[in-house]
Amino acid sequence: MSPVRIAILAPGLIGGSVALAATRTHPKAKIAIWTRHSQSVPAVRQHLPNAEIGTDPSLVRGSDLVILAAPPSALPTLIQSILPHLSPHTLVTDVSSIKLSVESSVAPLLQGQARWIGSHPMAGSEESGIQAARHDLFQKAPVILTPSSSTSADTLQDATSFWKSLGARVLSMSPAQHDSYVALISHLPHCIASTLVLAAGTSPLPLAGSGYRDTTRVAGGPSALWAEILLSNRTEILASLQTFHTSLTQLTSAIEKSDSAGLTHILEKAAHIRRNLPAP
Amino acid sequence: MSPVRIAILAPGLIGGSVALAATRTHPKAKIAIWTRHSQSVPAVRQHLPNAEIGTDPSLVRGSDLVILAAPPSALPTLIQSILPHLSPHTLVTDVSSIKLSVESSVAPLLQGQARWIGSHPMAGSEESGIQAARHDLFQKAPVILTPSSSTSADTLQDATSFWKSLGARVLSMSPAQHDSYVALISHLPHCIASTLVLAAGTSPLPLAGSGYRDTTRVAGGPSALWAEILLSNRTEILASLQTFHTSLTQLTSAIEKSDSAGLTHILEKAAHIRRNLPAP
Repeated sequence: MSPVRIAILAPGLIGGSVALAATRTHPKAKIAIWTRHSQSVPAVRQHLPNAEIGTDPSLVRGSDLVILAAPPSALPTLIQSILPHLSPHTLVTDVSSIKLSVESSVAPLLQGQARWIGSHPMAGSEESGIQAARHDLFQKAPVILTPSSSTSADTLQDATSFWKSLGARVLSMSPAQHDSYVALISHLPHCIASTLVLAAGTSPLPLAGSGYRDTTRVAGGPSALWAEILLSNRTEILASLQTFHTSLTQLTSAIEKSDSAGLTHILEKAAHIRRNLPAP
Repeated sequence: MSPVRIAILAPGLIGGSVALAATRTHPKAKIAIWTRHSQSVPAVRQHLPNAEIGTDPSLVRGSDLVILAAPPSALPTLIQSILPHLSPHTLVTDVSSIKLSVESSVAPLLQGQARWIGSHPMAGSEESGIQAARHDLFQKAPVILTPSSSTSADTLQDATSFWKSLGARVLSMSPAQHDSYVALISHLPHCIASTLVLAAGTSPLPLAGSGYRDTTRVAGGPSALWAEILLSNRTEILASLQTFHTSLTQLTSAIEKSDSAGLTHILEKAAHIRRNLPAP
């Protein structure tokens, strides 16, 4: 799609990066940014001098694309506020890292009012806010679209073409499949990185090399947002923690028994999977 | 110290990187490389054209510095073979990532034959072998020296000055303290990264973003070497796994109870520690 007006609601790391990327790839489109607090406007203007910036939800009017980049819990209220300014052809999507709960809270509100599809760009940083936004954040990043049975083919096509225009690798799956996979590939690693930091504590930190640094990097992320994400995907994350626990018990048992062959086999299985992960 | 002849025994990733770094920082010193198999000689020569390379342990003769870069289990036999060619003023050190067991297997063999101190450069890569060696591998990397009660001040001083000359940050502690800290900051992260890869499996890999990539990077390392390292530091690693397990149970319990405040508190404690880790 070639949007004429793109409205981005809440310019944090992800929303701000969408705005920066879209400014480059859709130079003819007007970028409109809604921010909750008027005191944020100057900072947003500094990063996006050509955007229309404001706190009134009516700025979404006339947009053919609306990106909801606020935290998942804020979406229903936000949608109620923009509803009068949408038209049935407007494509509305989000950037939440959980999809089943967003689908059930958002899709009914938009039904008949706009075209809706969930998006999850799997790009980020342990930093947050507009100051961490980057125009190339989505280059080669996976973006998962989560059509439901009521999503039309053109809605899926338009959302795919928009994210591809920002450089992303677009995948599509059901909201439930998304939540199960993301629990394993993103939420579980976050839980584990935080646990590692707490287990290692502060005493051995002067010895920290690149192994510790990389393995724990994501643990520096925003805690309140991550707590919200983890609790919203609670069932899938508890299942992934159980799977992790089973694997950890096997590895621990091989060390306890000084089972060199068994331990090497476990480490080699993991190394094989990790070495075959394609570069992004 | 300004060594005149530096012998490096086994030019893998670490030994090869010591050779490359020392070639630059000690241009007047002769670098002598011992490799177990004669078929490795051409590859080593390609990377180190000015070094003396051979399979005869007598090439250590005349060295004022000997770096043992073979795996820990190979060190006793290797030392037996070089013993006739050492002099009491020769400084011998290693690069093993475990220190208590190396200290007990190596120190008695060298007593009165050479000056000995254990070293552990905490630098590496998931790659291995001379082809992965880099002249800047030790720049800003922590190198831990592990003097014992019989280590003289000048031995500690000479080893410190050598590693500093390669760009390292040198720390000193007892072998036992080293093994306990390294279990937490290096061996535990390796166990956990491997477990994460196995728990996530292959199905969600197309969704992998930078979080998964960084958190699991070290799991691609050489399995047999890591199994040897983990089993050599078995007691400390089992203790660190127990500590990890306790922290993971707390985090899991907060998710089970949907305890948002408790979960945020746990994540924030970890984020605080991780954000305050100084850059290398």
